[in-house]
Amino acid sequence: MTILDFVRIVLSHTSHPGNIGATARAMKTMGLHTLYLVNPKHFPNEEANARASNAMDILQHAITCESLDQSLIDTVFIAAITARPRGLSHDVFDARQGAKELLYYALRQQPVALLFGRENSGLTSEEVSKCQIIIRIPSDPDCSSLNLASAVQIMAYELRMGLSENSAFTRTNNSPANFNEIEALYTHLEELMIDSDFLDPQKPKLLMQRIRRLFSRARLEKEEVQILRGILSALAKHSN
Amino acid sequence: MTILDFVRIVLSHTSHPGNIGATARAMKTMGLHTLYLVNPKHFPNEEANARASNAMDILQHAITCESLDQSLIDTVFIAAITARPRGLSHDVFDARQGAKELLYYALRQQPVALLFGRENSGLTSEEVSKCQIIIRIPSDPDCSSLNLASAVQIMAYELRMGLSENSAFTRTNNSPANFNEIEALYTHLEELMIDSDFLDPQKPKLLMQRIRRLFSRARLEKEEVQILRGILSALAKHSN
Repeated sequence: MTILDFVRIVLSHTSHPGNIGATARAMKTMGLHTLYLVNPKHFPNEEANARASNAMDILQHAITCESLDQSLIDTVFIAAITARPRGLSHDVFDARQGAKELLYYALRQQPVALLFGRENSGLTSEEVSKCQIIIRIPSDPDCSSLNLASAVQIMAYELRMGLSENSAFTRTNNSPANFNEIEALYTHLEELMIDSDFLDPQKPKLLMQRIRRLFSRARLEKEEVQILRGILSALAKHSN
Repeated sequence: MTILDFVRIVLSHTSHPGNIGATARAMKTMGLHTLYLVNPKHFPNEEANARASNAMDILQHAITCESLDQSLIDTVFIAAITARPRGLSHDVFDARQGAKELLYYALRQQPVALLFGRENSGLTSEEVSKCQIIIRIPSDPDCSSLNLASAVQIMAYELRMGLSENSAFTRTNNSPANFNEIEALYTHLEELMIDSDFLDPQKPKLLMQRIRRLFSRARLEKEEVQILRGILSALAKHSN
């Protein structure tokens, strides 16, 4: 396994199979191999195969999922590729800096994901809320409609480039919490908030999104998730 | 005219018209507009139009030439994009450094050209001999067959990046919580943790430090502190 094998490319709800093939080729030229497809419209498909050229092996090993959550299992860090500005926004990195953030974990053999949305409408807010950061690929403000496989190509290129540079920053060495653990924390917290009448499930507003955003910036560690859940359990028990 | 309008993309003997359209789109998203085609096999062409998406104007203004020399007229600096090692070698730059070399002239309003060869065989030695430098786009040694439009995409991206080297990373613009607000949050949380027997004040261990560390990474905003304290109050009230 190489470093770049820890980077998962996740395409959500792709309409045009040609883009899936072109994505596989874009990945392979830069040394990426791990492709997840969430509800692709047409796959497997002849046009995908044609555009994949000599990257057929990536298509053959691609993992098709019925839900986004399935495709993100075990990843410790997820970046959303999006061109649109977001109201409740995450930290935004450009392609180069974003690639470095991903490599930070991949170099430590922790799985990470790069999430790409639909060709026409991009990622939904709910999809973005599962991610820790947003990556925006620079483009001409007058024409920002980058083709899906082109966006993958640029990110794959920056990941490859980033490998050959020294990373200029260090972080603590603790184990990052993974997707499943973090989602379980959110579920736990949400239940308690509803039980204690802080959150009205009929009028949830943006509360859970705000909380996701806060904790995504923190990049929770395993042990921290345990502590937070311990606190929640203690508070809940005490209230009975 | 913008700086990037001084950068000419020259495609020599392109076989697949889809690649010409995808090239136009790749250029336009990054703010390039000047396309020269040397003896394209099929052009104008429906597939080219389809792949161009909203970059039809670039195809319409593309200049078709019968010889390479014609396409390079008036340029002061030409870079050959090639993956193969060359016997009689030029200076070789990677995509990022090569883009900077091109921008050096473009910033002084001098026309420059980026020359791309045939899909299967690349540039001939004679074509390369018309250029000042070779640019090699990094790729996996096991699979270096980058798609033509993908190669254009990466170079166009690096040209755009080279124009704006600053601003790699922006944070959201919300008001950060101040020291007093954050300390009040910690006090509030600590009290509840003690009340619910999660934290033994006789044996506090490193718990509060862990929590401080977590939230300091998040760089809390004012509103987020309010939300967190609201949750704590609700949980505490519920327990009475």
